[in-house]
Amino acid sequence: MSDSRISTDIDYDRDGKQVGYLNVPNSTNESGWGTLLMPIAVVKNGRGPTILFTGGNHGDEYEGPIALMKLLRALEPAEVKGRVVIVPGLNMPALMAGQRLSPIDGMNMNRAFPGARRGTITAMIAHYVQTQLLPLADFVCDIHSGGRSMSFLPSAVVHRLDDADRMRKTLDAARAFGAPVGLVLKELDSEGMLDTAAEDMGRIFVSTEIGGAGVVSPATIKVAEIGARNLLVHFGICQGNLVTREAQGLAPTRLMAVPDGDCYTAATENGVYEPLVDIGETVTVGQLLGQVHDIERPGEPPAEKRAKRDGLLVCRLGPGRVRRGDTIAVIAVDL
Amino acid sequence: MSDSRISTDIDYDRDGKQVGYLNVPNSTNESGWGTLLMPIAVVKNGRGPTILFTGGNHGDEYEGPIALMKLLRALEPAEVKGRVVIVPGLNMPALMAGQRLSPIDGMNMNRAFPGARRGTITAMIAHYVQTQLLPLADFVCDIHSGGRSMSFLPSAVVHRLDDADRMRKTLDAARAFGAPVGLVLKELDSEGMLDTAAEDMGRIFVSTEIGGAGVVSPATIKVAEIGARNLLVHFGICQGNLVTREAQGLAPTRLMAVPDGDCYTAATENGVYEPLVDIGETVTVGQLLGQVHDIERPGEPPAEKRAKRDGLLVCRLGPGRVRRGDTIAVIAVDL
Amino acid sequence: MSDSRISTDIDYDRDGKQVGYLNVPNSTNESGWGTLLMPIAVVKNGRGPTILFTGGNHGDEYEGPIALMKLLRALEPAEVKGRVVIVPGLNMPALMAGQRLSPIDGMNMNRAFPGARRGTITAMIAHYVQTQLLPLADFVCDIHSGGRSMSFLPSAVVHRLDDADRMRKTLDAARAFGAPVGLVLKELDSEGMLDTAAEDMGRIFVSTEIGGAGVVSPATIKVAEIGARNLLVHFGICQGNLVTREAQGLAPTRLMAVPDGDCYTAATENGVYEPLVDIGETVTVGQLLGQVHDIERPGEPPAEKRAKRDGLLVCRLGPGRVRRGDTIAVIAVDL
Amino acid sequence: MSDSRISTDIDYDRDGKQVGYLNVPNSTNESGWGTLLMPIAVVKNGRGPTILFTGGNHGDEYEGPIALMKLLRALEPAEVKGRVVIVPGLNMPALMAGQRLSPIDGMNMNRAFPGARRGTITAMIAHYVQTQLLPLADFVCDIHSGGRSMSFLPSAVVHRLDDADRMRKTLDAARAFGAPVGLVLKELDSEGMLDTAAEDMGRIFVSTEIGGAGVVSPATIKVAEIGARNLLVHFGICQGNLVTREAQGLAPTRLMAVPDGDCYTAATENGVYEPLVDIGETVTVGQLLGQVHDIERPGEPPAEKRAKRDGLLVCRLGPGRVRRGDTIAVIAVDL
Amino acid sequence: MSDSRISTDIDYDRDGKQVGYLNVPNSTNESGWGTLLMPIAVVKNGRGPTILFTGGNHGDEYEGPIALMKLLRALEPAEVKGRVVIVPGLNMPALMAGQRLSPIDGMNMNRAFPGARRGTITAMIAHYVQTQLLPLADFVCDIHSGGRSMSFLPSAVVHRLDDADRMRKTLDAARAFGAPVGLVLKELDSEGMLDTAAEDMGRIFVSTEIGGAGVVSPATIKVAEIGARNLLVHFGICQGNLVTREAQGLAPTRLMAVPDGDCYTAATENGVYEPLVDIGETVTVGQLLGQVHDIERPGEPPAEKRAKRDGLLVCRLGPGRVRRGDTIAVIAVDL
Amino acid sequence: MSDSRISTDIDYDRDGKQVGYLNVPNSTNESGWGTLLMPIAVVKNGRGPTILFTGGNHGDEYEGPIALMKLLRALEPAEVKGRVVIVPGLNMPALMAGQRLSPIDGMNMNRAFPGARRGTITAMIAHYVQTQLLPLADFVCDIHSGGRSMSFLPSAVVHRLDDADRMRKTLDAARAFGAPVGLVLKELDSEGMLDTAAEDMGRIFVSTEIGGAGVVSPATIKVAEIGARNLLVHFGICQGNLVTREAQGLAPTRLMAVPDGDCYTAATENGVYEPLVDIGETVTVGQLLGQVHDIERPGEPPAEKRAKRDGLLVCRLGPGRVRRGDTIAVIAVDL
Repeated sequence: MSDSRISTDIDYDRDGKQVGYLNVPNSTNESGWGTLLMPIAVVKNGRGPTILFTGGNHGDEYEGPIALMKLLRALEPAEVKGRVVIVPGLNMPALMAGQRLSPIDGMNMNRAFPGARRGTITAMIAHYVQTQLLPLADFVCDIHSGGRSMSFLPSAVVHRLDDADRMRKTLDAARAFGAPVGLVLKELDSEGMLDTAAEDMGRIFVSTEIGGAGVVSPATIKVAEIGARNLLVHFGICQGNLVTREAQGLAPTRLMAVPDGDCYTAATENGVYEPLVDIGETVTVGQLLGQVHDIERPGEPPAEKRAKRDGLLVCRLGPGRVRRGDTIAVIAVDL
Repeated sequence: MSDSRISTDIDYDRDGKQVGYLNVPNSTNESGWGTLLMPIAVVKNGRGPTILFTGGNHGDEYEGPIALMKLLRALEPAEVKGRVVIVPGLNMPALMAGQRLSPIDGMNMNRAFPGARRGTITAMIAHYVQTQLLPLADFVCDIHSGGRSMSFLPSAVVHRLDDADRMRKTLDAARAFGAPVGLVLKELDSEGMLDTAAEDMGRIFVSTEIGGAGVVSPATIKVAEIGARNLLVHFGICQGNLVTREAQGLAPTRLMAVPDGDCYTAATENGVYEPLVDIGETVTVGQLLGQVHDIERPGEPPAEKRAKRDGLLVCRLGPGRVRRGDTIAVIAVDL
Repeated sequence: MSDSRISTDIDYDRDGKQVGYLNVPNSTNESGWGTLLMPIAVVKNGRGPTILFTGGNHGDEYEGPIALMKLLRALEPAEVKGRVVIVPGLNMPALMAGQRLSPIDGMNMNRAFPGARRGTITAMIAHYVQTQLLPLADFVCDIHSGGRSMSFLPSAVVHRLDDADRMRKTLDAARAFGAPVGLVLKELDSEGMLDTAAEDMGRIFVSTEIGGAGVVSPATIKVAEIGARNLLVHFGICQGNLVTREAQGLAPTRLMAVPDGDCYTAATENGVYEPLVDIGETVTVGQLLGQVHDIERPGEPPAEKRAKRDGLLVCRLGPGRVRRGDTIAVIAVDL
Repeated sequence: MSDSRISTDIDYDRDGKQVGYLNVPNSTNESGWGTLLMPIAVVKNGRGPTILFTGGNHGDEYEGPIALMKLLRALEPAEVKGRVVIVPGLNMPALMAGQRLSPIDGMNMNRAFPGARRGTITAMIAHYVQTQLLPLADFVCDIHSGGRSMSFLPSAVVHRLDDADRMRKTLDAARAFGAPVGLVLKELDSEGMLDTAAEDMGRIFVSTEIGGAGVVSPATIKVAEIGARNLLVHFGICQGNLVTREAQGLAPTRLMAVPDGDCYTAATENGVYEPLVDIGETVTVGQLLGQVHDIERPGEPPAEKRAKRDGLLVCRLGPGRVRRGDTIAVIAVDL
Repeated sequence: MSDSRISTDIDYDRDGKQVGYLNVPNSTNESGWGTLLMPIAVVKNGRGPTILFTGGNHGDEYEGPIALMKLLRALEPAEVKGRVVIVPGLNMPALMAGQRLSPIDGMNMNRAFPGARRGTITAMIAHYVQTQLLPLADFVCDIHSGGRSMSFLPSAVVHRLDDADRMRKTLDAARAFGAPVGLVLKELDSEGMLDTAAEDMGRIFVSTEIGGAGVVSPATIKVAEIGARNLLVHFGICQGNLVTREAQGLAPTRLMAVPDGDCYTAATENGVYEPLVDIGETVTVGQLLGQVHDIERPGEPPAEKRAKRDGLLVCRLGPGRVRRGDTIAVIAVDL
Repeated sequence: MSDSRISTDIDYDRDGKQVGYLNVPNSTNESGWGTLLMPIAVVKNGRGPTILFTGGNHGDEYEGPIALMKLLRALEPAEVKGRVVIVPGLNMPALMAGQRLSPIDGMNMNRAFPGARRGTITAMIAHYVQTQLLPLADFVCDIHSGGRSMSFLPSAVVHRLDDADRMRKTLDAARAFGAPVGLVLKELDSEGMLDTAAEDMGRIFVSTEIGGAGVVSPATIKVAEIGARNLLVHFGICQGNLVTREAQGLAPTRLMAVPDGDCYTAATENGVYEPLVDIGETVTVGQLLGQVHDIERPGEPPAEKRAKRDGLLVCRLGPGRVRRGDTIAVIAVDL
């Protein structure tokens, strides 16, 4: 069935719950005939749509792996009508290392699609997802968290699509996820993303940015857990009711957009970044968002970073250390 | 005056404000006659006590460097009666790298005291502080933030001292700092710390843990800034009034202790850590604090981590990735 | 004649014996105009078939390089009718480093075919073999030894071929080699191998696995030396008689196969592997082959590894350290 | 207009002087949304030809970056008729690291053309030059200096071209540059060079080798500065007169060639190289150029390296450390 | 009781069986408050002597860790009279990495004694053994296996001691161990060894070299298992009979010595080593032991390595790759 | 005689010429019983003084190793009255790597004295020189060349000594060496140098700085060769006449001093350094020596570096890449 170099004992067509591995060839100096064992689970029950959940696309984003490991243990075939495929650690070597990129080949999984059959580890995994998993799926949810460097107001993230019907279905899904924000991005450099791969096949695709800075918290994990469950209900795979934000006593998901380059502010200096505005705060054009201190010349005044437009600060640099070219702030506006 | 290999143009006895460098010999393959230039500032005016402020003892803790760079720019001799010595980046190579330990010699600055004249970079810097700066100081404040792996409820931290008078003066200073918590630690492994070096010389010493996880925020920077200014007033070096917590509409500093080993919980598994309780929450013995998921075997139940005593969660593991032996929680009790 | 970036002073058409170099462009930070000098030898005398011998395809397998260096020194044109091309260190940088993969580009030479003219070092070498050496050859013998991680019962290794005539000729050559075992593999992931490159061009191809674990011994070197000489006689390039196993007082080569996935056992745990059966021993289904001890939790019982079918243990993990996904045993059955 | 992943604020069609950046996407573990800011300048005034100057193609060659940074600061639109595009650090990460190859992907920029839109950093930059900058240019000057390992008699370097008219124009430009030598190379391995990319588009292309060994000097910087200015005059972009060698009291540019492989001498030993002839000296066939001492066996006589033809030594190994395959001498002959 | 920085929950004075950890402080960039958990077990029953077993002193020697993990699981207090302390992985970080030296500080555990309280990880562990474990012990057995580079005829190894009574007791213990060889070494460079530390405290000390080359086998593991059990019986800690070599149908332990420098042969060339004699074979002075082939110049004759005295080859280089200064053979003579 | 861990076959008391090795224990992961073989030669004839020549104290300074390897091959016992000890590569691992510091332990040999018996490789070598070689010597000459980062006007270098007689003898030796400059340094940070070790034992000590920037040339090698031979004559070990500068048609050695900190200029910026004055040129206070260009902000004016006193530029930064704290110029004045 497959011409991937990756094999598995999982039978995607079998009813029931299977927790197993993708066997990714990984010949190293220490293990000539070594294999990377990458966990995967399938919960299937009869006919119905298929959803693919992925976490750990970047290895320093933990809400996805945690929520999905809990989901794969909790979910029973009897609850399901259709099929749920769960890959809690898509860039498994990166997740094991606790870093964004694969320590084996240095690649960013989310720019590696459609992958390559005989490429490096990351490219082989992307190729497997592209050729084996995406064709099975009707819906795809890839749970991101900002990663080590970025701290995000928890958001369901979707792309602007040309097809109005798919755009509406995608927005409905984003709202169903139940994060504080539903963010519509016009991705400038989307080639190679899992998002693009899924959308190009016509799948309904929802990504997220939930927290970040390489840190996890009870609150952000809860967003991911509720969101994943809500999608199962929303797409008709599980019975039951959505856990709405209203039911949790929260404001409804705020639909917002990041329409242009003025939403982004980048550092053009090396140093230590002092944020003066936190995520979730409203900013106005010209407002001081933060400043970069030159640790090598502390007597010099810091470089000021100001908002280039009005809006809500949905993302900011997490760590204090900043290098030229780092994104330090993203402003969103209501849709 | 000194037998340190480190030289400086700073004259510690001169009135006025000087921002300069410690010149730390650093012969490398690329630069045989290279020097590490490590910023230092002195603001002096007449007679009066001396306070030494240090930040960046660990290079991934940014509140100290930011607050101290702002202080050294803002502080003018006319405001001062006595002397303020500021080292915003004590482990400068670590701060430049944005990591805890020195990338040059791999050393932890806070276990390097009293240092060594002909040791590695970190040992030479510790030796300079030990032999040149501590003798000048009456008071020492070393601003920490938890670092990449630990997330701390902002605290002024002091050690239990045998001398009741010094203990009282130290607690007074901790309270004056104005953090949410004043934490009295019985350090189990205190040899080599700047704390110990300063205390052994009879200096009044206050450390802090403000935030952490390698992340900075407007709120935690503010704690450091107010705290440093408050100490200047408290020790009589600057005129004016303390910015009390009450004046900020906040609860007074809560004095707490970490009295024994049961306050600490460590992981004995590798995996991804899911915190179930956040810092600042009250816990009771036996309560589930979090759990470790085995990302290599996601089908297995997670390892549960429970509180070994009642108290307040003042510190928890920041990142999701956890390795055997990592501290994942610290519980404190009211003094 | 060639569009490879690799040049050589060797004239493959000249009678006599030439020992020279392939000049592989290798621009580095230390040597902008550097060249990797990769030894090659040709012994030619008049008309007749050509055999290509390669060793060091993996850099931690030494029987091939040793036997071939001795052969290239000993072999004189007068003994030869046809042509013998010898590359004792195919992945020369890996051989110099004593490791499986190239230290320059991290590549596995035996998955790099057909290579690429402008690829990395490994890809350039593969491309040269593909475009310059394989076209010259009628017969190809690539001497492997298991490598650092695997220990093999000395075997001539061939693949199952669809063409019955070529299969027969290949088996005859494997038998002529004179190793204890002649192993017929159905390679699951053969793309990129030298084997595949040679077979796709219609060459008679024999590989080997002689010993391994990164260790050499007088006995295994002898297998490689006799085998290489035997092939020269068998293919009619040298005169004389085969050094048969019978003449050495040994049992004849045992023809065996590795027909399916049940022949392979892999570790799914990290730890230290204790083999309980050695290569050359007969095993029955369910028999305990070895066990993995968790060095981090030595009080726990080890994970048992059992044979999934009857047969002869022809290969096992060499070192004690084992990681998830490592192959720990290969069982073969009589053909 | 472009499908490069690299963006810029520079408007190549706007009159005036712009100094800005190419924004090269560079997602790392420390900065997920990071960008490499690569300086570029454009000085434009009305209609006229375009010249593209590049330096830092190899990151350890400094005459180009220095001369071009000075030129971009000094050059005013009023002096120009046409357009001058300046990239002082083409392999910016390599220049920052002071090494030949990119520390990010290990690539040699001058073998990376035509690059790849979704390749590594070096490939992305090459692709931008290929698709965005070369199409704008009529003339291209890429300033090299030999680099860490090679020391060169300052030379303008051109390739032998089949088209006599372009050959003549190219030689005229090389002469106008005003270096001591004008060197016509028959490049053996020219695929992937910026030279080839420019020439294949029909641009007049001049490269240089000015000094080298990773060392800069007032004299070699002067050659680069005068040369760049002279080309602006020669191509009619700036007014004024050439600063001829004659006007400087120097011998005219000597046109020479490196016609064949005998011009090159390489080491076949590891050790320390003792040059016995310096660049700029005349050599005769058989003359001892230098010798390689085996530092591990200093009692052994050194390996002698002799000239394989008469000519002028235009290039020699700079550092004492030599490894097998290093080029140690290049001899040129008068054209 | 201890001034080590290492703590443990183990109570060495408590009867029964305890399997726990030494907690070694290990502050890293990823885990500021991290701890290395190093397994240790104690089996105690009433009064009687104490034996300390250590394995994994070098991290690439596996017979010790395997035999000792099996022993600690199997041994019950009821079998014991006295105390058995077991450290299966003395250089735990090295054992986890599968290499000789600690990957954390690069140190050789067996040259780190007496260690240092505030030294690196290896020095701290050595210091703990020196100050906490050796004082408890009457007998010490440190199980080595040759390691990655050396292959040893399985031997119990002891040092020549000046005290005749202790020499006799030590030889008795070596014989009781039951390895093929009992080897009396005059160690030339013994400072810093665990051996020396134990002997200097007056403990009866037996070391071993069982196999090696980084490879484990059923046969060598059996030697270690029987040997450890035999020592328990021999020293009167366990009841029962020795498993003698005679009872196994084997020749008795051969007592041998390595009396002088002529027993050792070292390589003075880089290349690939071809052994011509295997361990366990008898050699005569002048006999060719093996030869070093220069892989960079395969046409040159190899360097011959000859025996400098008569005797038994008890040890040889394991891997093919050899570097100048490597020991390639050790010859022993009957005592 | 020695308690060094380093052994040798050399007999320092034997007449004749011996070329051999110091055997430095070097246990590595690849070679547990490995040894660094470090070349040494002794040429002795009867009674007379002893001179110790060392080269390669820094591994990127080649004039010393080349001149000393040639000397050790050429020098015959009959020419000598007394003893000549030659260590051409004092930091042998650094010399093999072509870098300043040891790649094994990262140490600077010239700050490692008096070394340590059980220290790292560099410390062990320093300890051997301190305890075995310096006691044998009456005169010591350590040939340096500036190294990768510094380019020096060829100089014999001595220190200001308190003892007038030894100062005179030392200056006589420096003059006899015959370099263009004889430089009297007041070393600010001399602890740990071979110089200091030798001087503290009362030896007459001459060092050099000949060229540098990691580059060798025929001219600088000649200075080293003539200098070494001249010292042999000057100290009465060899017969014959000095090769004086006058006899070579050169100006006599210019005795100069580097009296204070104003002689040194350092960079306080990162960037690329453009020297405007070359070594050997006279400078006046305030003169522009060079400028640092900020390659990240090429539009900004460069940082100017000016002479702080009148004198001769005897040393300047070699490479273009400059980092904060690098020395960029040294000015000397006539004695």
